[in-house]
Amino acid sequence: MLVNMKGKDVICTQELSVQEINALLKLAKEMKADRYGDKYNQLIKDQTFLMFFFNPSLRTRISFESAATELGGHAQFLEPKTMRLKKTSGGVEVQAGETIEDAAQVLARYACGMGIRILETSVENYGDGNALLREYAKWMDVPIINMADDKYHPCQGLSDVMGMQEHKGDLKGKTILMTWAHGALARSYCSVHENLLITSRLGMNVKLAYPKGYDLPEEEIAKVKVNCEANGTKFEIINDPDVGYTNDVEFVYSRNWFGPDFYKIGKEAEIARASKMTDWICTQERMDHTNNALYIHPMPVDRGKEVTDEVASGPNSIIVNIAENRLHTQKAIMAMTIAGMKVEI
Amino acid sequence: MLVNMKGKDVICTQELSVQEINALLKLAKEMKADRYGDKYNQLIKDQTFLMFFFNPSLRTRISFESAATELGGHAQFLEPKTMRLKKTSGGVEVQAGETIEDAAQVLARYACGMGIRILETSVENYGDGNALLREYAKWMDVPIINMADDKYHPCQGLSDVMGMQEHKGDLKGKTILMTWAHGALARSYCSVHENLLITSRLGMNVKLAYPKGYDLPEEEIAKVKVNCEANGTKFEIINDPDVGYTNDVEFVYSRNWFGPDFYKIGKEAEIARASKMTDWICTQERMDHTNNALYIHPMPVDRGKEVTDEVASGPNSIIVNIAENRLHTQKAIMAMTIAGMKVEI
Amino acid sequence: MLVNMKGKDVICTQELSVQEINALLKLAKEMKADRYGDKYNQLIKDQTFLMFFFNPSLRTRISFESAATELGGHAQFLEPKTMRLKKTSGGVEVQAGETIEDAAQVLARYACGMGIRILETSVENYGDGNALLREYAKWMDVPIINMADDKYHPCQGLSDVMGMQEHKGDLKGKTILMTWAHGALARSYCSVHENLLITSRLGMNVKLAYPKGYDLPEEEIAKVKVNCEANGTKFEIINDPDVGYTNDVEFVYSRNWFGPDFYKIGKEAEIARASKMTDWICTQERMDHTNNALYIHPMPVDRGKEVTDEVASGPNSIIVNIAENRLHTQKAIMAMTIAGMKVEI
Repeated sequence: MLVNMKGKDVICTQELSVQEINALLKLAKEMKADRYGDKYNQLIKDQTFLMFFFNPSLRTRISFESAATELGGHAQFLEPKTMRLKKTSGGVEVQAGETIEDAAQVLARYACGMGIRILETSVENYGDGNALLREYAKWMDVPIINMADDKYHPCQGLSDVMGMQEHKGDLKGKTILMTWAHGALARSYCSVHENLLITSRLGMNVKLAYPKGYDLPEEEIAKVKVNCEANGTKFEIINDPDVGYTNDVEFVYSRNWFGPDFYKIGKEAEIARASKMTDWICTQERMDHTNNALYIHPMPVDRGKEVTDEVASGPNSIIVNIAENRLHTQKAIMAMTIAGMKVEI
Repeated sequence: MLVNMKGKDVICTQELSVQEINALLKLAKEMKADRYGDKYNQLIKDQTFLMFFFNPSLRTRISFESAATELGGHAQFLEPKTMRLKKTSGGVEVQAGETIEDAAQVLARYACGMGIRILETSVENYGDGNALLREYAKWMDVPIINMADDKYHPCQGLSDVMGMQEHKGDLKGKTILMTWAHGALARSYCSVHENLLITSRLGMNVKLAYPKGYDLPEEEIAKVKVNCEANGTKFEIINDPDVGYTNDVEFVYSRNWFGPDFYKIGKEAEIARASKMTDWICTQERMDHTNNALYIHPMPVDRGKEVTDEVASGPNSIIVNIAENRLHTQKAIMAMTIAGMKVEI
Repeated sequence: MLVNMKGKDVICTQELSVQEINALLKLAKEMKADRYGDKYNQLIKDQTFLMFFFNPSLRTRISFESAATELGGHAQFLEPKTMRLKKTSGGVEVQAGETIEDAAQVLARYACGMGIRILETSVENYGDGNALLREYAKWMDVPIINMADDKYHPCQGLSDVMGMQEHKGDLKGKTILMTWAHGALARSYCSVHENLLITSRLGMNVKLAYPKGYDLPEEEIAKVKVNCEANGTKFEIINDPDVGYTNDVEFVYSRNWFGPDFYKIGKEAEIARASKMTDWICTQERMDHTNNALYIHPMPVDRGKEVTDEVASGPNSIIVNIAENRLHTQKAIMAMTIAGMKVEI
């Protein structure tokens, strides 16, 4: 089957078909094996990819900019705070400026595609970031790539499963433990959501562990359940830091995320609460109860809180490899959506 | 006739010959028709174009950086506030640092050309921005391109007339209405000046409408008059928001600009005054009195103040096309002044 | 002899062999003579060079970014302040975040090399900047290039001697006067150290003049003495602004630097003290006592304080040429350490 994604936006892997996910993963692996090869380095030659960072991120910026460079193009690092956009509140204009309709249509004339990063700290309510990204997608006739918003992070999810496949082959029927961890960073949902969605989509059993009060949004959990049902796999929620580490688990992902009342109580209160739950950490002792599980994490890692140094720097940690995969999956996304490269799966 | 602009600075279209303007427009149109063609994508290969933004501007930055990329080169986005330049006031040094003489000579060793953007908000008196740009031009033996200063905006002017020609062919003898509009942005003169200068230069009749007290600088109006006299065309000033919309008008350009006392009264006072004159807006009803005129604007548009949504998003609005033309005219300028491409007209 | 520097970090010229220094200088001169030639413009094709600026610097940024462009690659301008790094004080974590170990290993997956700039104003104690640079070098398996730290500036040192050789040929046995100068900039040691180290290394006699209290760090002076002893040349310290200008001097380098108590007394106190010593300036009258010496300086020049306009803009000033050489020496370093280009000397 020949997969064609030309012109498609990439906002969440759940909105791609499994065939599209598999095509992207196949291409990303081929690109990794032939990094500067002639096969790929002209795909967006002389073209401009725009990167809109409402939230700063060095790693995402570097990996996207490198991706464009390696495909022969050029990525521009942009901070939209210097754009003067019209703002309204309750139907009344509170800041004179340009509409997204106007701005987006012009940007599409200059660029072959655009990435947007907008996290919870740049918006007032959960989902506003994702909505803004979709507003740009509506007005632009070139592909929009989600570089992490307040709901999803498709490039991270693809990089996770690419790394998992590189080390363990087909993921079908294998089990992942996603576990909350304490820490002082009040982290976004996006990487966690995306991992739950894409691993369940690709046929894995999913165990989700977190302390009471740290439920993830219901609508995302509902999607994960549907994915598992469709694949005949298991989905389990555990409110204990220990019992998820069982001998069927082949991957462990420990990560801090904020509670559902974060938007109300704010960052400091969230950090104060989360910092107390020091038993929520991935340790070697816990890992020893698994099936020699690999440790994964989207990085940056909050060592000593999300995971011990022993695990993070240990032989079963594949975090740096997964981080590297960001480059390759992003190249694959650009190649297929922008350059229209077709992939046989 | 073969036009050669190698090494030339582009500070205002009035300082170019009509032949040079026509050559740039011809080349820009060819480049638009063959955007990534082999004919142009090596013109500044591996060379560096510097962009000095004393004032931020996302659109100008994107269009110039894309232009350099499409010609095979690389543009660097620079904010001179991180340069420590010597400053004097009344002959006394008030800040230790480097002279423009030294800085400019070194920059010219690294780069093939440089763009400068410096608006009224970065200088104390009208014309200081343009003077600084000319100071860099004096010390650098590579082309300096004005990316908008407090007086002129040649790339915008060229893009305006390129778009107008694309829709209506030869502009000679046609009529444009340039009209002031209210709003809360206290906008610069540069785009307005440049449009008046280049449309009058290319043989158009010019109607200029604004409320009493919003006169443009006399020296620029004098140049527009000379241009019209040389072409045997009409130039008219109207202090009424309605009567300029007549059945000979084929283009309408509505735009806010600040009054001549802006540098004294400041931005807030200017905005308070301008915001009251709500009758100064381009509406469909007014457009209906013209010869099916096209609506033009340099963008970003202040919708609801400079123009209604009905006109800005209507079938006669060519604003997005003109915005796109910034890319092509800037490529043409770089190709002719930096790479020395010659154009037969 | 074929010199191979593939994979090598460049932190200080003192840590390179004389053969490596000579190879870099030879290649830089060849690259200068054939700037956009096919021989070099594919050396890091489609690859990414990262530039970490803990301290801003327009000139260093432009010259490094141009260097990468001219070798076919792309340099990314990064400000690490947007990275959230873990910080500890006395063993206690004072800021949650990522370790350099983790950050550096990931960066090395995306990039072919990295430059770091970190001066005294970004660290608490003398040497901390250099130590941080070495920490990155420890964790990254791609070359690290020092873009100026609180101790060294190898690219400037190489550019100095390249310019000196271009004008006077072999430097062996020739004499340079490095003299302190007053001014209000409280300048770093790095360029001064590097010049003293590399000129003494290449066989020059070195005269070092400064007012009492402006001693440079002992450990660097000790290295200069060892270099001179190894070459059988003279090293002399003079605490007088006049007597260093003698008829054997062929190069004069005047430059402000801060006193050893700078880290304690702070910038303002240092500037107040240094600004009073107005007799410490390079003048034409003093230059007239030398052997028609060339004037050198790493720029930006603090005219009227470090040197008079007469000297800085005079026929014997080679400062702009040396500034240009930054581009060429940096290209040579990248070509040899990153691309593995070998040079026959």
